[in-house]
Amino acid sequence: MYGMIGKMIAATGKRDALLEILLESVGDMPGCLSYVVHKDVKDPDAIWISEAWDSEPSHKASLQLPAVRAAIAKAKPLIASFGDYVITEPAGGHGLSKK
Amino acid sequence: MYGMIGKMIAATGKRDALLEILLESVGDMPGCLSYVVHKDVKDPDAIWISEAWDSEPSHKASLQLPAVRAAIAKAKPLIASFGDYVITEPAGGHGLSKK
Repeated sequence: MYGMIGKMIAATGKRDALLEILLESVGDMPGCLSYVVHKDVKDPDAIWISEAWDSEPSHKASLQLPAVRAAIAKAKPLIASFGDYVITEPAGGHGLSKK
Repeated sequence: MYGMIGKMIAATGKRDALLEILLESVGDMPGCLSYVVHKDVKDPDAIWISEAWDSEPSHKASLQLPAVRAAIAKAKPLIASFGDYVITEPAGGHGLSKK
């Protein structure tokens, strides 16, 4: 498995709009086992994304999906910056479901 | 929804044993929507946990479940330290499934 946990900072006041775009595009990504978008409760502009994929190639391929490319283009102007991120190897758990 | 993303450092060489304990105890936690345990690919002792719950009370209640209490007791000697963690409000995504 391949995973990523990362932070994204929305342009001021744009977090909800950015969340909406992020959530629209996660509907149908082959090999995606989990993709959860979180609001940071302390930072009103921060978003955390935790992802699990069956493999790294599935994750890479998702970035080429037309719906994901469209979402990235739409989201870009609403993103102020990217924070820390970590690459992981998910070991298991609850809520891992293959598309 | 209530969420948490956090880092745990296993005692040297004990990450796999710790992962096994963590994964045993996530089988049946009411209100748990997602609980994914990740290995950090860069740090051989680090574990990341990303969680989503239907509510904060469900998360708190889980800590009182006999299976979870037993797992915590078993895991404690294998944990060197806790790293950063962030409290979140999950906004949605793929892989959120209620017990």
